[in-house]
Amino acid sequence: MENFEFYSPTCFVFGKDTENQAGKYVKRFGGSKVLIHYGGGSAERSGLLGRVRSSLDAFGIAYVELGGVKPNPRSGLVYEGIDLCRKEGVDFILAVGGGSVIDSSKAIAAGAIYDGDFWDFYQGKWIEEALPIGTILTIAAAGSEGSGDSVVTKEDGMFKRDAHGDVIRPKFSILNPALTQTLPPYQTAAGITDIMAHLYERYLTNTDEVEVTDRLIEGLLLTMIHEGPRVIEDPDNYQARANIMWAGTMAHNNSCGVGRTQDWNSHTIEHELSALYDCAHGAGLAVTMPAVFTYELSHNVMRFAQAAVRIWGCQMDFANPEVTARAGIEAFRNFLISIGMPKNFEELGAREEDIPKLVDILCNGDGRKGTISGFVTLDEEECTKIYKMMV
Amino acid sequence: MENFEFYSPTCFVFGKDTENQAGKYVKRFGGSKVLIHYGGGSAERSGLLGRVRSSLDAFGIAYVELGGVKPNPRSGLVYEGIDLCRKEGVDFILAVGGGSVIDSSKAIAAGAIYDGDFWDFYQGKWIEEALPIGTILTIAAAGSEGSGDSVVTKEDGMFKRDAHGDVIRPKFSILNPALTQTLPPYQTAAGITDIMAHLYERYLTNTDEVEVTDRLIEGLLLTMIHEGPRVIEDPDNYQARANIMWAGTMAHNNSCGVGRTQDWNSHTIEHELSALYDCAHGAGLAVTMPAVFTYELSHNVMRFAQAAVRIWGCQMDFANPEVTARAGIEAFRNFLISIGMPKNFEELGAREEDIPKLVDILCNGDGRKGTISGFVTLDEEECTKIYKMMV
Repeated sequence: MENFEFYSPTCFVFGKDTENQAGKYVKRFGGSKVLIHYGGGSAERSGLLGRVRSSLDAFGIAYVELGGVKPNPRSGLVYEGIDLCRKEGVDFILAVGGGSVIDSSKAIAAGAIYDGDFWDFYQGKWIEEALPIGTILTIAAAGSEGSGDSVVTKEDGMFKRDAHGDVIRPKFSILNPALTQTLPPYQTAAGITDIMAHLYERYLTNTDEVEVTDRLIEGLLLTMIHEGPRVIEDPDNYQARANIMWAGTMAHNNSCGVGRTQDWNSHTIEHELSALYDCAHGAGLAVTMPAVFTYELSHNVMRFAQAAVRIWGCQMDFANPEVTARAGIEAFRNFLISIGMPKNFEELGAREEDIPKLVDILCNGDGRKGTISGFVTLDEEECTKIYKMMV
Repeated sequence: MENFEFYSPTCFVFGKDTENQAGKYVKRFGGSKVLIHYGGGSAERSGLLGRVRSSLDAFGIAYVELGGVKPNPRSGLVYEGIDLCRKEGVDFILAVGGGSVIDSSKAIAAGAIYDGDFWDFYQGKWIEEALPIGTILTIAAAGSEGSGDSVVTKEDGMFKRDAHGDVIRPKFSILNPALTQTLPPYQTAAGITDIMAHLYERYLTNTDEVEVTDRLIEGLLLTMIHEGPRVIEDPDNYQARANIMWAGTMAHNNSCGVGRTQDWNSHTIEHELSALYDCAHGAGLAVTMPAVFTYELSHNVMRFAQAAVRIWGCQMDFANPEVTARAGIEAFRNFLISIGMPKNFEELGAREEDIPKLVDILCNGDGRKGTISGFVTLDEEECTKIYKMMV
């Protein structure tokens, strides 16, 4: 295990009706003038925004609002949010929505008190200062409610990039599983896939002797395998939603990823797909992961065999561990298909002829130098092969 | 799953040589005049205290010192620490040691800025305010480095009681697994037992539909089963020590215990043993748990069967789940014996003739009214039976 610092100072408020405590927690963490940031009209129609406003009113907290965050959040709205915060003297950002809304909120929180262009943070500058953020989560997927990360797409060039800093970890995150019950099955499944990806990206490590984090990751994946199909079959199953929601938070606050190198090649490769085709990130990951894992398999057969045995219940082939390793990847692929995720480019809405363009942006865009790095380092030729495996 | 709030704002600094960063973290969390609180002479002899002092000096942080914390920390030294803090204007407590030192530090931190008797907190008053605390952990066991709990024994009556509050969660905890390499095997094994107890106490729940926390607990127990014997066999195994240390923290910061009722009968029953005989808490738990689990088994056979199958790898007896359930408890008992823990009163140094006295203090001492409550509620007669099972 490697040395690490782990700091997750977010107060998680979990359960039924917890959104009605928004005002109490904004006050507890020092907000007096809030930007309510959200996505489309469903937050309004469902009455969620109304309940949040009432809760803020009850605690005498003023607010302005900015809706319109789209999946794969864009830089344009971030600039708008930054201007609004400065003009209105906002001192707290309240994200009401899923990962895209939270990530957009984090960008605004960092940009609002930064003299330069907020995009600097998405080109590698560590975020040292930001307005405090609270979240009311409506989709179990991105894990952004408990992370110090944010992903935003720059419209000029469609670069999808990430930024990091402990200061953008939310002060509080309100997690009411019931709010996720109205999600369409496809979005629910994409969320499940994203959570499982966050776990696999941490599982694929080059660090030895990490039994404790291996076991935590396996436990969370086993939870997803148990609860995922239940919630697809019965979207109103509160308990299954609840288990998935806490697993999603634990999957990405990094308590199970500390002290070990991580992969993230699947995310990096997928980001170009959702940036170009605007597909659901989870759906892109469902197509990407089996290809990436199969390509990376030879790098450490025993790690994939361990996943197969411990997570997917495969029998170990002691004479030929690669058979077991492949069986585990196949089981994962079949699981993703079973919950309604796409299995190839065609089902995702991606095009084979775009592969050269995808690879070029992936490996050379926005400052990269011909490769991406994770569990293994991949060059343009290898990334081309991986995209072709997805066709 | 039940509604919950989870807040673990401790910054964990993990790995080799991290104690040399003590000054940096005290400064980061606002300390300027520190009480260094520690146990016996080993912290001095090993050079640990010297390294901590140097680190504080390097950041210009003043300090006073109070050593002498004993296992099962006593109220007398807490009063002394409170007086010292007030006299010296201490604004930060730095605990250098194991759970006893940390728990004593928490009591001092709460008591130093409280007008009444600090013991009020150990009789049920929630701790709302305390001096900030940092820890440098030297034993993986109690989990106090990441918890909002403290256990102290009142010398007048030898009552061992607990207190709680988010404000006594450490601001930072420095976890260097190498510091635990010098522990004698017995103490290492007692720590392993305590960690496993924290997991079992959470596992034994009356809440349905808690797959995610079940799986996390199982993952941490599987880690302990793998790493425990390795570290007993080879005390210098840094990696095994590291896995145990992070498991110990995760076992008790409650991330795997949220949203579910918990047991804690084993801890409550054991506390009387370590209070009376001054035995190691973990050793007491090793004798207590198999008896308590066997007594509680009929309350939920399937829960114990699940533990047996998922944690201990027992084959499920579908015709008679109780056989499996008992096999799991037996496997746990054998594991504890294999790492050197006592298996009965005699090996622990406890006496059968004290049982009436133990039961009386347990069920009626310090405000209790004839029963203790956890996974099941136990009256004096039942507690007597359980203690007798340990003979």
